[in-house]
Amino acid sequence: MSHPFFIYRGPISIGRISELLNIKIDANSNSEITDVKDLINADQHSLTFLHSNKYKDIAKLTKASFCLTTSLLKDCLPNTCKPIIVENVLIATSIITSKIYPDSIEDEFDSKVKNIEETDFKKDIKYGKNVLVGENVDIGTDCLIGHNTIIEKNVKIGNNCKIGSNTIIRNSLIKDNTSILDNCVIGKKGFGFFPKKSKNVRYPHIGIVIINENCEIGCGATIDRGSMSNTEIGKNTFLDNQVHIAHNVKIGENTIIAGQVGIAGSSIIGSQVRIGGQAGISGHLKIGDNVDIAGGSGVIKDIPNNTKVMGYPAKNIREFLRENK
Amino acid sequence: MSHPFFIYRGPISIGRISELLNIKIDANSNSEITDVKDLINADQHSLTFLHSNKYKDIAKLTKASFCLTTSLLKDCLPNTCKPIIVENVLIATSIITSKIYPDSIEDEFDSKVKNIEETDFKKDIKYGKNVLVGENVDIGTDCLIGHNTIIEKNVKIGNNCKIGSNTIIRNSLIKDNTSILDNCVIGKKGFGFFPKKSKNVRYPHIGIVIINENCEIGCGATIDRGSMSNTEIGKNTFLDNQVHIAHNVKIGENTIIAGQVGIAGSSIIGSQVRIGGQAGISGHLKIGDNVDIAGGSGVIKDIPNNTKVMGYPAKNIREFLRENK
Amino acid sequence: MSHPFFIYRGPISIGRISELLNIKIDANSNSEITDVKDLINADQHSLTFLHSNKYKDIAKLTKASFCLTTSLLKDCLPNTCKPIIVENVLIATSIITSKIYPDSIEDEFDSKVKNIEETDFKKDIKYGKNVLVGENVDIGTDCLIGHNTIIEKNVKIGNNCKIGSNTIIRNSLIKDNTSILDNCVIGKKGFGFFPKKSKNVRYPHIGIVIINENCEIGCGATIDRGSMSNTEIGKNTFLDNQVHIAHNVKIGENTIIAGQVGIAGSSIIGSQVRIGGQAGISGHLKIGDNVDIAGGSGVIKDIPNNTKVMGYPAKNIREFLRENK
Repeated sequence: MSHPFFIYRGPISIGRISELLNIKIDANSNSEITDVKDLINADQHSLTFLHSNKYKDIAKLTKASFCLTTSLLKDCLPNTCKPIIVENVLIATSIITSKIYPDSIEDEFDSKVKNIEETDFKKDIKYGKNVLVGENVDIGTDCLIGHNTIIEKNVKIGNNCKIGSNTIIRNSLIKDNTSILDNCVIGKKGFGFFPKKSKNVRYPHIGIVIINENCEIGCGATIDRGSMSNTEIGKNTFLDNQVHIAHNVKIGENTIIAGQVGIAGSSIIGSQVRIGGQAGISGHLKIGDNVDIAGGSGVIKDIPNNTKVMGYPAKNIREFLRENK
Repeated sequence: MSHPFFIYRGPISIGRISELLNIKIDANSNSEITDVKDLINADQHSLTFLHSNKYKDIAKLTKASFCLTTSLLKDCLPNTCKPIIVENVLIATSIITSKIYPDSIEDEFDSKVKNIEETDFKKDIKYGKNVLVGENVDIGTDCLIGHNTIIEKNVKIGNNCKIGSNTIIRNSLIKDNTSILDNCVIGKKGFGFFPKKSKNVRYPHIGIVIINENCEIGCGATIDRGSMSNTEIGKNTFLDNQVHIAHNVKIGENTIIAGQVGIAGSSIIGSQVRIGGQAGISGHLKIGDNVDIAGGSGVIKDIPNNTKVMGYPAKNIREFLRENK
Repeated sequence: MSHPFFIYRGPISIGRISELLNIKIDANSNSEITDVKDLINADQHSLTFLHSNKYKDIAKLTKASFCLTTSLLKDCLPNTCKPIIVENVLIATSIITSKIYPDSIEDEFDSKVKNIEETDFKKDIKYGKNVLVGENVDIGTDCLIGHNTIIEKNVKIGNNCKIGSNTIIRNSLIKDNTSILDNCVIGKKGFGFFPKKSKNVRYPHIGIVIINENCEIGCGATIDRGSMSNTEIGKNTFLDNQVHIAHNVKIGENTIIAGQVGIAGSSIIGSQVRIGGQAGISGHLKIGDNVDIAGGSGVIKDIPNNTKVMGYPAKNIREFLRENK
């Protein structure tokens, strides 16, 4: 039930949730929820959350027993799911999640790392000078880890992977035959917080980064872990240098992403997609399969399968080139 | 009188200035100036400089005793300020500043750093492996400093700050409760020089970087220190990954800057500004308070308070979207 | 005959080439070629390659004895050069090059580095803590090498160079008086491969990076080495922070490139060019001398000498500003 990576401080009772949110909840205060999950992944022991009309169709199907929501949205829930009415759903979700996973908010440097020389990994892999390894790390056979690289806690690396030098990885699954080049930062918390005048309030990031088989991640890349879901890169997808992948992004297989591309939070990119250098993709978009996005484009709406786009805002490439001769 | 951070080799006499610039100066050659400052900050012991008509109104108010300027601009100065006429004001200012602060031009790596284990800091803070600390460094209580991080000379860090791993900081003030994530470079000299065919001539950077309370600076950020003024980031301003802030930039409070944004030299950004991913802001601009700049925009002129802009060149967002349906 | 940097496993016989490509070659199977070179640099002992009609004029002049090409292009070759007909010229070239230079495909971290303290360099240069130096490295006098920097194998650094901290260099020539600042990665393999569904096939990168005299490379830059030719930066060219230079790019002298610029593979940039922040230049373009490219521009076609451009796609700056008032 608990998360594989973050310290688990659940379950949590409805009475305690009531106290934390400073609201009355019309339910047995001794009932417990074991986890906070999104509408789809929630089970009967979960608390879920519904903050937008956009999700009303999937809300009907949730298996959660409780749902943080608003009075306007509460009727979208099935009878098996009890609404807990709050003013700001995301802030309330953040408060409860933070209690269950208290170390998912800030990324303090991993003070428990050891030099790889002091670990058992030294037998099975080839490694450089000054490599540090944290707790709950597993590394497969025939891997290479470059100099000054830090594998912080909660990392699983498959077989035959190549990690460059000066790279930092935490809270990530790296699958077989994947290369991550120099100076990357993989698995840090995403750029997610509630703006507040005196001091912004960060929300938890209990998602991880998953990089599937046969990928290559270029130098200086940053790939942030997800907030409530994972950030995931499909098999055999290659990223060039200085690419930024924000939290919750999902990228398909066999996709090619050129230098300095940025993909904002929660966007979903298909398979066999080609993205030219410096292109930017806004958050919460869906880019289909077999899409070409020309270098320098700025994508601000969904793109269907088998489409070629260019420009800012990105549009059909033939149209763009005709208008910009 | 002297600068808190750079080695001070002043005062300098008018006679020596005359020699260095290879010009005659109609003043007592034994008179001395103690510092070079801009028109506003100069006092009666300072040399100041006036190179553009744009500054004629503030020139009238300067308290400096001497001013490097041109024959066209010299009449903008008050009677208390003696003009020193030169061909190229900025080059002349650079030459004199370089003499007073000789180590403000190049950033040689700090050869006097020690492993933090050999310093007194080890008692009050939590730190990773291989942390290096230079001279004239002060670190408050309850700070965290990650692995392989280098705090070079001339850095003051407040209380409860979190510095990531593989980060380099020099010539900077970091105030309480601020986080700087992994792989950043903070406080290096800016990209300022006089182009010259055989070898460009770098000008001095005697400004520092100030990051105020409660800020967060994302991974891979570069924030350059100022040339004649400071680079400063206001309280509770958050920067995402791979952001570049050039020399002399000032950013207000509660501002949010997404990934891969670049702000060119000497621009001033207000408070409560939101800048989307990959947006770029040209140099020497003034962006008001409560401004929204859409991701991917290119801003090439000033933006008033309470405005939303988009596009390249950035314009009113409604106008942009209407024209680009 | 052999390459200065990569392990040489040539020469290779025509019989072996026939086997590797699984084709019949109508020539003495004991004939040998010593190297694979482009049409211009090939000599009578070389194998060359011709994959596009674009190169038919220079193909006529090649001195190579053999050329990988297609049946459509074979008649462009001189009588002295025997065509070897293949289905995909670039894949075939890649296969043969990989056999001659087997270590030019992947950049495994250099496991033979030593701490600089254990080398002879320690006498002539100033260096920081934890500096690592590989085999086949030469460093001139009066150089500075910052902390945690890794000079991997195959690097020659001239006199009076300044290398920052946390920087990684391999397969590069750095000439006198050049500065490379912190957190750079110079000389890694470029982003070049043949897309293939289960696992992309990387092609060899036997080019190096050459950075000529008096250059400055900003923090966080990535400069990839060339595939079949070199990546080269001319004298006294300055790059700001977070710039990305792809494989095979050539940049002239006295050029100024602002922050976050990206230049895609094989483009040629002239001398006295000024490129504003965040501009992007597509691959395989030719930008003339004394060109101004405004910040944020996206250049997708060649630009003649003495031109100022702006926009995406970049066009004459006056035209762009008139249309975008």
